[in-house]
Amino acid sequence: MKSSRSLGHVTPQRAHFDAPLQLASGTTLAAFDLVYETYGNLNAARSNAILICHALSGTHHVAGTYEGDPRSTGWWDNMVGPGKPVDTERFFVVGVNNLGGCHGSTGPSSLDPATGRPFGARFPFVTVADWVNAQARLADHLDIPRFAAVMGGSLGAMQALQWSLSYPGRLGHAIVIAGAPSLSAQNIGFNEVARQAITTDPDFHGGDYYAHGVIPERGLRLARMLGHITYLSDDAMMEKFGRELLGERPRFSLDVEFEIESYLRHQGDKFAERFDANTYLIMTKALDYFDPAAQAQGNLSAALAAARAKFLVLSFTTDWRFSPGRSREIVKALLDNSLSVSYAEIESTQGHDAFLMENEDYFAVMNAYLERVAREVGA
Amino acid sequence: MKSSRSLGHVTPQRAHFDAPLQLASGTTLAAFDLVYETYGNLNAARSNAILICHALSGTHHVAGTYEGDPRSTGWWDNMVGPGKPVDTERFFVVGVNNLGGCHGSTGPSSLDPATGRPFGARFPFVTVADWVNAQARLADHLDIPRFAAVMGGSLGAMQALQWSLSYPGRLGHAIVIAGAPSLSAQNIGFNEVARQAITTDPDFHGGDYYAHGVIPERGLRLARMLGHITYLSDDAMMEKFGRELLGERPRFSLDVEFEIESYLRHQGDKFAERFDANTYLIMTKALDYFDPAAQAQGNLSAALAAARAKFLVLSFTTDWRFSPGRSREIVKALLDNSLSVSYAEIESTQGHDAFLMENEDYFAVMNAYLERVAREVGA
Repeated sequence: MKSSRSLGHVTPQRAHFDAPLQLASGTTLAAFDLVYETYGNLNAARSNAILICHALSGTHHVAGTYEGDPRSTGWWDNMVGPGKPVDTERFFVVGVNNLGGCHGSTGPSSLDPATGRPFGARFPFVTVADWVNAQARLADHLDIPRFAAVMGGSLGAMQALQWSLSYPGRLGHAIVIAGAPSLSAQNIGFNEVARQAITTDPDFHGGDYYAHGVIPERGLRLARMLGHITYLSDDAMMEKFGRELLGERPRFSLDVEFEIESYLRHQGDKFAERFDANTYLIMTKALDYFDPAAQAQGNLSAALAAARAKFLVLSFTTDWRFSPGRSREIVKALLDNSLSVSYAEIESTQGHDAFLMENEDYFAVMNAYLERVAREVGA
Repeated sequence: MKSSRSLGHVTPQRAHFDAPLQLASGTTLAAFDLVYETYGNLNAARSNAILICHALSGTHHVAGTYEGDPRSTGWWDNMVGPGKPVDTERFFVVGVNNLGGCHGSTGPSSLDPATGRPFGARFPFVTVADWVNAQARLADHLDIPRFAAVMGGSLGAMQALQWSLSYPGRLGHAIVIAGAPSLSAQNIGFNEVARQAITTDPDFHGGDYYAHGVIPERGLRLARMLGHITYLSDDAMMEKFGRELLGERPRFSLDVEFEIESYLRHQGDKFAERFDANTYLIMTKALDYFDPAAQAQGNLSAALAAARAKFLVLSFTTDWRFSPGRSREIVKALLDNSLSVSYAEIESTQGHDAFLMENEDYFAVMNAYLERVAREVGA
């Protein structure tokens, strides 16, 4: 075992892009900012960079903490740092907040230069491919001709897959964790309930709640409560909460009765404080729209023919949001194209959330695979 | 095959009960009404009655239609009628709207005799055991000493199981379809999201929306949309809706984009028009509280020791709301008590909703089992 430690203090940076960005929707974004963080050092050959793509509610703040805020640990700190699977002593790691986000990159709460007011609902819908195009601009800005690997979990996994299609020559490996080649009808259904919760909240004001000095807190809360149920497995919830009551006996009221209710309400409240509702809508729509096979009459194998990267695909046994079967669809399509694919289905009780958790098998696979990536690029 | 046909016109009836009903919560209901329907004829021995218990959003209107309203077919019309599995030419069938309901039985929208205003949020929470006690009063009223069978699906299955514990001498068979011995944490979580959607709707007014001339439509809509996702299997949704767009191409807006979104919104809208929000809260809480094992330190086998009925337990392979594993828990506990149990796990792609659908294997089992019940009671 290598010994691992925390990155320590990290600092976000900002890049401004002046050249217009053409979006899949047909709209053009005249200019935009991306907020990002980097950890470790780019080697002389500029060959050791790894791009980490975030999921629905993630950010550019992948690892480390901010000075003066010891509780500000990055969302994938267990995976990224000195001596960790994504070893910042060997790799130059880039985390970026996606377009449409609410953590510094240009998004619905940014001021629209055309009006001087927040974009709100006028911020264009963006797709996974749009994000990848914006990330490629950031790679240019950082003078990274080719990533050793692009990786992510969930919606982040979709970005890693899209990189292999949009810029096949600009990545060595795509690491696709707890992903899917598209959402199922059930996935879209859950997203739609979340969106309806937000847009029918009277405080949504058609997306212009900024001007009204309110946020659609009720809707965001419901969206997050629902999300959390789908991130956990039924078994994990039973293990963690079971049917435990908060009190000694049922109170027969609408107050919190069971532990699980308390947990969900708390998660909902926290999320509503920190996340922008318009961003939530944009992120869930990006999920819905992702479907590379659609460009090839539904034939995923044909759609992935452009890929040149090597692939690591990982799924988790109790993930019912993006089940192992969805990862196997990707693996099969890659194999149909005679691409190099490693696949592992990791035993876990943690459901979809497993991709964020430390798990011996998972981390062993990641360590071994990234060791190989490091060797290939001389890191 | 016997030939089956529709019951034709049916008429609801109402029974008033003056003796106070003690509820599990400690509250007493001074008096109450139950609305019910009956089909077929009670035989001279009064031995051929079958009680049908409804699920979350069901009613006493199980089969047949109302005169002048040809679209008013009962919710289990495929199961109940002349020549159907629950053959109304042999059985006397009773359907009843549960206490707390919104289809005629005393519930939150009824006038509280103490105030002359709707009960609203002051209507007491009721449990499955409370319902069974109220149903037993109806049996007394109809002079039915013992049911040939008590049956139901989902929350109705819980009532059938509870009958075998509360009144072991008053039923010959319990038919427990797509049921569970208790909700899982995930089940409770979904219910809680639905309840929070309703109670945080500004039009809920703490349950007194009747007085404000509004209904918490947004919340009810969300509750029902979410419910529908959990009633269907992922596969059934893919089969029925897939990723089909409503239009030719994505519109990149918050309007309905996919067929599944359109379906869910439509279901939500319809439900909000016809169902009372306070009743929805009461029904979901009854589900949450149901847990016979809790009275025996979590030991379901010990909890079911009181049962004397014979059992038919049915589950459906793709039901993930109440999975076959939950039915098997019931079967195991019944077998631990050396009770007579028939169990079948029916192949179906329809998820939890399968209990309401015609399915050859399912109906064959029901026909065979009810044939036996009929023979036993000389019907």
